[in-house]
Amino acid sequence: MQFYSDEAIEQVYKMRHAIEDVKAILNDLNDDKIIMKERTVLEVPGTQNTMLYMPCINTKSNYSILKTISIFPENKSKPVSQGVTLLSDLTDGTHIANLESSYLTRLRTGAMSAIATDKLAKQGAEVLCVIGTGGMAFEQVLGVIEVRNIKTINLYNRTYEKAKDFKQRLEDFGVTSDIQVFDDVTEAVKNADIINCATRSEESVFDHKDLQASVHINGVGSYLPEMREIDTISIKHADTIVLDDLHGAQHEAGEFIQAEQDGHFDFNQATLLKDLTDKNKTEGVTIFKSVGAAYYDLAVTTGAYKLLNA
Amino acid sequence: MQFYSDEAIEQVYKMRHAIEDVKAILNDLNDDKIIMKERTVLEVPGTQNTMLYMPCINTKSNYSILKTISIFPENKSKPVSQGVTLLSDLTDGTHIANLESSYLTRLRTGAMSAIATDKLAKQGAEVLCVIGTGGMAFEQVLGVIEVRNIKTINLYNRTYEKAKDFKQRLEDFGVTSDIQVFDDVTEAVKNADIINCATRSEESVFDHKDLQASVHINGVGSYLPEMREIDTISIKHADTIVLDDLHGAQHEAGEFIQAEQDGHFDFNQATLLKDLTDKNKTEGVTIFKSVGAAYYDLAVTTGAYKLLNA
Repeated sequence: MQFYSDEAIEQVYKMRHAIEDVKAILNDLNDDKIIMKERTVLEVPGTQNTMLYMPCINTKSNYSILKTISIFPENKSKPVSQGVTLLSDLTDGTHIANLESSYLTRLRTGAMSAIATDKLAKQGAEVLCVIGTGGMAFEQVLGVIEVRNIKTINLYNRTYEKAKDFKQRLEDFGVTSDIQVFDDVTEAVKNADIINCATRSEESVFDHKDLQASVHINGVGSYLPEMREIDTISIKHADTIVLDDLHGAQHEAGEFIQAEQDGHFDFNQATLLKDLTDKNKTEGVTIFKSVGAAYYDLAVTTGAYKLLNA
Repeated sequence: MQFYSDEAIEQVYKMRHAIEDVKAILNDLNDDKIIMKERTVLEVPGTQNTMLYMPCINTKSNYSILKTISIFPENKSKPVSQGVTLLSDLTDGTHIANLESSYLTRLRTGAMSAIATDKLAKQGAEVLCVIGTGGMAFEQVLGVIEVRNIKTINLYNRTYEKAKDFKQRLEDFGVTSDIQVFDDVTEAVKNADIINCATRSEESVFDHKDLQASVHINGVGSYLPEMREIDTISIKHADTIVLDDLHGAQHEAGEFIQAEQDGHFDFNQATLLKDLTDKNKTEGVTIFKSVGAAYYDLAVTTGAYKLLNA
């Protein structure tokens, strides 16, 4: 059974592939072809460490996955989160391959934001603001620049030096937008058409009053009930709020859980990514919030495997 | 990440290793070092096919496993059951290796029967009767001959030719006992000191009245509520009944579920394999019934990995 490392996958499987594969899985989801069970969480006693197991099957493509993620917050020499996904063939039960899952997880999250941004951001959007330049942020930028002609990228990070490193990394990758690093988030957001938030913050990372009247926000941080990054006022005044997965968001999307408790938001009134059409309003405040779900992993794991074996 | 095939594992990891590793995990279980969650079952709609996911962690050895098994009853060219186990290191969350799991599953089941047989069969036991010479049967024999000096092996299978092939396979492997093939199960069991049942039968595979007064029975078939292989009268009259895992047996051990419903047996009165001591009664009828549990897989997966990397 073949194993594919992050590096091997990254060489062949790109953002544009992930966007196509995630779009296809959203159709499969609407066609009731996806079966996903509640993830299993095993906490390691006496530690902060957790093992997560996420199974999912696609009865249209006839593949299944089991994604295993270890989350070890106090890791120093190894990454905090380490993932691997087993791909199995549902035509005969064969276990085909294991794919390392750090790159694929970041890529599918970027692809999800790309799809939401494409449907919700104004057509002429050209200024992207990035708040938080850590783990997930890079592929979030790659997603947005795939769907809009971004001329300027404003970077803000709590640690200024890390934002500078991030600018360098984007430039090294070949991103041709004009990239500015800010030490004041107010300045970074004020002319933004699109804002990407990817932080581990426990409070809002921008102030709603600093935003343009029409802005699209992607939030991929805030994956625990006690976290928040999108300002509650933005949630309250948003024209459209889109979630990647209702069940996951209800249990993990910190600022939305809080906003619902405070009476500013109702999960059952939100739109799901799978239900977005091309006829959405692209004016006012639009928000896409993602926490992840196994079917998105299924989409990119299957897609990457096929491309690696094409 | 390394992958080890059944063939690679079989070359270095033997019954005697599995017995030691299963004994060790029983101690860890008694020391509350094992955390196992309910397995996840995903049924593939419109088919008889099932995906099973079994996670387990050992906080003493600091390893975790996730065993994935596909069960495709109508498979022709591929095995009905195909398994692979992911081994992870709980000191830093690293995913270490994948081990193919058909051989390891058969071996750990044989090792469990070996441990039970060692504690429950009479010391001078020398005649082993094997009922059912399919999938699990071979390692069941290897387990028993590891713990008793077996002089004669009586084989019975519904299809006589398959029992003859099984005799050849044992001889090729180097088993030196005198091996007889029977076409009448009554003849096969009547002088047996130990009986191994490994069938998919839905009715008793022997008649209690044909048994010796002192006999030890290992039952590893009958893994669904509608199955049964051990005669209910033997369950009713048994001096000792030992289960590998209470929760699993209550949901899967067909003839015992039926016997409890009929008032002949009480799961809560049974002894668990982890609680067996050297002071058990070895006279009368003793029964060991196993259905499997993820911690047994954890034991042999970890043990095999270590030996493969020694």
